[in-house]
Amino acid sequence: MEELIVVKIGGNIVDNPDALTSFLKDFSSVESKKILVHGGGKIATKVSASLGIETQMVEGRRITDAQTVKVVSGVYAGLINKSIVAQLNSMNQKTWGLCGADANIIPAHKREVKKIDYGYVGDIDTDKIAINSFDMLLNGGFCVVVAPITASPSGQLLNTNADTVAQSIAVAMSSIYKVKLVYVFEKNGVLRDIDDPRSVVSQITPQIYTSLKDQKIIVDGMIPKIDNAFEALKGGVESVRICNSITNNGTLILK
Amino acid sequence: MEELIVVKIGGNIVDNPDALTSFLKDFSSVESKKILVHGGGKIATKVSASLGIETQMVEGRRITDAQTVKVVSGVYAGLINKSIVAQLNSMNQKTWGLCGADANIIPAHKREVKKIDYGYVGDIDTDKIAINSFDMLLNGGFCVVVAPITASPSGQLLNTNADTVAQSIAVAMSSIYKVKLVYVFEKNGVLRDIDDPRSVVSQITPQIYTSLKDQKIIVDGMIPKIDNAFEALKGGVESVRICNSITNNGTLILK
Repeated sequence: MEELIVVKIGGNIVDNPDALTSFLKDFSSVESKKILVHGGGKIATKVSASLGIETQMVEGRRITDAQTVKVVSGVYAGLINKSIVAQLNSMNQKTWGLCGADANIIPAHKREVKKIDYGYVGDIDTDKIAINSFDMLLNGGFCVVVAPITASPSGQLLNTNADTVAQSIAVAMSSIYKVKLVYVFEKNGVLRDIDDPRSVVSQITPQIYTSLKDQKIIVDGMIPKIDNAFEALKGGVESVRICNSITNNGTLILK
Repeated sequence: MEELIVVKIGGNIVDNPDALTSFLKDFSSVESKKILVHGGGKIATKVSASLGIETQMVEGRRITDAQTVKVVSGVYAGLINKSIVAQLNSMNQKTWGLCGADANIIPAHKREVKKIDYGYVGDIDTDKIAINSFDMLLNGGFCVVVAPITASPSGQLLNTNADTVAQSIAVAMSSIYKVKLVYVFEKNGVLRDIDDPRSVVSQITPQIYTSLKDQKIIVDGMIPKIDNAFEALKGGVESVRICNSITNNGTLILK
């Protein structure tokens, strides 16, 4: 099978124009077929604040009310997505931007209200991802840039977790590609000592993961990230890498 | 040649959720291949005002400064484009949204500063429109929804006149399709008496146009609209129609 790289970049890159340009240069030099998923960073929060909309967070997730979903749809699927697309095209990287609502390429539904009402937040119908539509663009020679906005069957736009979008695309595409999933974030990888950027854990297997959690080396926000990585591997993804630059090795997560 | 319909809707529809849904129902029942171009209406102006950005207009054109181009990129290519896409998909109309920056499908450049500095406004490089990329989507069974945002070769997003976007796409696609261009706006068509909605001029040829201008029946904002229509016909478009609903005849403009 041919190789496909799925890269997710976080807010620290999206929020910083120089870091973004530098990342996009590295990304455009990757030679395989590729998909880039971006989050939204602080821009949506800033825009919401300027518009007088209060941003509520519960357990690290944004509560998305009717006004907020309009703001994030504009900021993620419009401003950020098209800025990235325009930059990559200017680097002679033929690039197509989209969000999950386009061609209903990432079908989703509004998250059920249980303990918390997340509002207009999308949960992905992972088994319905439109593999053929992604492949039409990839085979057309395009790199694909994905904003984490989806739509419900009734046409309601939904805010969707970008890590999950990247993971779901990676798993779906692994039925026809050898997929490498890369999470680019602010640290060099998973660190043994959070204050020492050189203390990167080079590999994590399920056994090492259990041990690192027991030692409280892996805590908090890193746990769902690595849980997602193992989910992706179970779903057929070849490897998952967590790093601060696609040119660095970072931490490789393996089955 | 196969038929393709290119429809442009104005702000009066985009700004009114009921009018928009009603239009989209009509649009989804059109059976040929189709492309929809939307403007932005008053939403961008309202968002800009809320963010403390003053909107400057000169000769009916928005002056687009660095902040404003971010707002219109978000509102047009994100919020409005994806809301329309999600609604059409919910009506079982397979729909793909994009702006001119995606795949550099509508190449443009920043308008040269002459008497007026329009700021980040795009003029379309009409001979470079990516006919094959549009056709890839149309042949994939998708209806295409286009936001009037383009990008310069250096990757700067640019605000672009939606009437001109529709006209340019129609002309470019007429090399491989029999293209019908339809402008949907707030009036029943070109009216002999502006206060009488029944006074629609059913056909305008160049000769009739000259006469109607001489009689001051066609004035102001209608003149560039009809000039554009004749440009489109000269460029190979089969017919241009101006109407308030795609189910009404309105005014047909012919060579």
